[in-house]
Amino acid sequence: MDVSALLAQIEAIGRTPSGGYTRTSWDAPTMELREWFAATATALDLDLTEDGNGNQVAWWGRGPDALLVGSHLDSVVEGGPLDGPLGVASALAAVGRLKASGVQPTRPIAVANFTDEEGARFGVACLGSRLATGAITPDAALALRDDTGTSLAEAMAAQGRDPRAAGPSAWLDEVGAYVELHVEQGRWLAPAEAAVGVATAIWPHGRYRFDFCGQGNHAGATAMADRRDPMLAYAATVLAARELASGPLEGSGPSQDVNDGDSPRGSAARPAFVDDGDSPRRSRDARATFGRVQVRPGSTNSIPSRVTAWLDARAESTAELDALVRGIVARAEASAAAEGATVEFRAESTTGAVEFDHALRHRLAALLDAPVLPTGAGHDAGILAARLPTAMLFVRNPTGVSHAPEESATDEDIEAGVDALTRVIEELA
Amino acid sequence: MDVSALLAQIEAIGRTPSGGYTRTSWDAPTMELREWFAATATALDLDLTEDGNGNQVAWWGRGPDALLVGSHLDSVVEGGPLDGPLGVASALAAVGRLKASGVQPTRPIAVANFTDEEGARFGVACLGSRLATGAITPDAALALRDDTGTSLAEAMAAQGRDPRAAGPSAWLDEVGAYVELHVEQGRWLAPAEAAVGVATAIWPHGRYRFDFCGQGNHAGATAMADRRDPMLAYAATVLAARELASGPLEGSGPSQDVNDGDSPRGSAARPAFVDDGDSPRRSRDARATFGRVQVRPGSTNSIPSRVTAWLDARAESTAELDALVRGIVARAEASAAAEGATVEFRAESTTGAVEFDHALRHRLAALLDAPVLPTGAGHDAGILAARLPTAMLFVRNPTGVSHAPEESATDEDIEAGVDALTRVIEELA
Repeated sequence: MDVSALLAQIEAIGRTPSGGYTRTSWDAPTMELREWFAATATALDLDLTEDGNGNQVAWWGRGPDALLVGSHLDSVVEGGPLDGPLGVASALAAVGRLKASGVQPTRPIAVANFTDEEGARFGVACLGSRLATGAITPDAALALRDDTGTSLAEAMAAQGRDPRAAGPSAWLDEVGAYVELHVEQGRWLAPAEAAVGVATAIWPHGRYRFDFCGQGNHAGATAMADRRDPMLAYAATVLAARELASGPLEGSGPSQDVNDGDSPRGSAARPAFVDDGDSPRRSRDARATFGRVQVRPGSTNSIPSRVTAWLDARAESTAELDALVRGIVARAEASAAAEGATVEFRAESTTGAVEFDHALRHRLAALLDAPVLPTGAGHDAGILAARLPTAMLFVRNPTGVSHAPEESATDEDIEAGVDALTRVIEELA
Repeated sequence: MDVSALLAQIEAIGRTPSGGYTRTSWDAPTMELREWFAATATALDLDLTEDGNGNQVAWWGRGPDALLVGSHLDSVVEGGPLDGPLGVASALAAVGRLKASGVQPTRPIAVANFTDEEGARFGVACLGSRLATGAITPDAALALRDDTGTSLAEAMAAQGRDPRAAGPSAWLDEVGAYVELHVEQGRWLAPAEAAVGVATAIWPHGRYRFDFCGQGNHAGATAMADRRDPMLAYAATVLAARELASGPLEGSGPSQDVNDGDSPRGSAARPAFVDDGDSPRRSRDARATFGRVQVRPGSTNSIPSRVTAWLDARAESTAELDALVRGIVARAEASAAAEGATVEFRAESTTGAVEFDHALRHRLAALLDAPVLPTGAGHDAGILAARLPTAMLFVRNPTGVSHAPEESATDEDIEAGVDALTRVIEELA
């Protein structure tokens, strides 16, 4: 079962005219991908289960201390082909190889397709793993609504699932470790001339909603001086977010940044450039992005009454993230006040720093002779890390582009990823 | 037939939870409003016609040199109750009064409900009057599409209309003059302590589309320095538009501004404050508004690949408008270039300055002892002005707010508007 053949089987599902992919939870493409996962698992003689949250798990043996591998099959809107599917297809291909070679693992092996990792539809990332681990309550999750007003409960029911079954998953009690392979996001491996890397940590990150409110009015009849236009406050906040995320943060206090454990370092007066010790020296700024905005009423000839925008912010440490977000909120409030408008701010989801299991990651890095690197992106592995040893493998992305149709990896690197994952399973099983 | 009773009959149609109104062309609310117009006209014993563009005209007598009164029934998204309906209801009420009082007009009187004045659905304002007068070709109009991809031709066909019938309207040949009553947009009449005013002119205005294109990417994994984020270029352009529209324009050359005819003035070194001669002295800046924006892919955790935004711009003269738009485009291009992004610019619709018929407006201002005022808003009267004598009456809007749920006029002022329109019809009929 060749990984390229597996990826080819799903390359038309959820494809958009731009060449990107839109596969959001409980929509038609992700339902088709579930069927593909089930059929592929069955062909591999794995036992397929689906929990009350929609997480699919295909088992090679059952019992305690299982080794879980996999990823997710949903995407952002207009995303790329590999973010998620590469990990699932590689896991299925690796299990297929091991089965074909007659390996008899000493512990159960399971392949996961986690539901709604991207949060593209209901706004909260890693919903499937958060529900399974209890990181979010079923009540809170099921009440989330998409842009059309459909709740998660309604979306699940529409696909024949019983939303009352959502919540902590008993099958996780059988899992002893999780390894997720993922296409690289950002560009570390290309300069390091490595096809595969091992993750050290995930930056703390959050999603924050800003509601800028002003006075809707006529675009032609309202003098500029008489306006209270929330679009102006939003625009100023976008520029402030760029400025604050690009420079060294003020007021972040003593460094509480994620330390990879290999390179102890002082906490005072840390420069913007830090050294991982075992990964290429590079800049470590924070991240602030406004990628989603809704304007009300949204007419060309109307001054908006409300602009709602979502900030995605990340930083190396919780203290830096807090300082960044506080700074952006302060600038938003000042910009709104200057316009005679108001702004309301709410953190919709936040995730603290995740450091992957030290022993496991050193074992894998040594096994694969692979560099280690941090990630600014969140993953189900980050959610599961709070509960059990987890690790991540990254496959080189030559341009670093992800969450976009241009996301890519070479066939050779994808094969190298499956080789690495196969070796990891053999090592751990 | 009381104007307040007429407005009460339609107050629930197209109402939104915010208390505003969304009535866009060929949608369910505007279809229901058509039925109301038809029923009311029939109750007044008027002969109802509908041309191939959807413009409804109710006739009190037929023949050459008819006096047309009326307005439109559609709204912007989340607009107010009066922009459009006040003019239609006042015209019906005035005709009802004249009929009840036994007046026998010497010329035909007709009441119009023009289709799609706001352009909220298909992007081009005054579509009904533009089609009727030939200001837009049927081919160009029918190919316009709404945000869901439905063309005007499809929308008309879905409501049982034959789009092949769209185009120049023969009934306009029978019309000798048009008078449109409208709720005031902006705030001139309140400080002038007048319930009703007469329009001098409509500023030249246009709608312009900006497509900012960058590189979609992962919001967490992409360093700030590596981004080509079109949202940044858009935000900078919003701030530039405010700045350029607020100050005196540079490079606008000799003044070609609309002159109300009552106060000849020099063209050189004109200050930002000008004097109409017969209206309150006030500031006259230009107008620039970004009220509509679409982000692709529009995910919280994705740097956008494209931001499409629409500029509404207006100024006293075509030269000033051109200079304003040129200035905003130059700033958009510079902001995009600084971000490593691009911007494409296209004028989607432009309308030159309209000066209402001098003789007619002086006659009405004298008749009503009403102040005259310009308008930054476009109207069907502005389109028809290119073909026949037109005039507009404005009814005081105490706050000046329009294109928003807060748009209002007092019952007394609404009655004063009907009184004025009745006198105007009597004077001209």
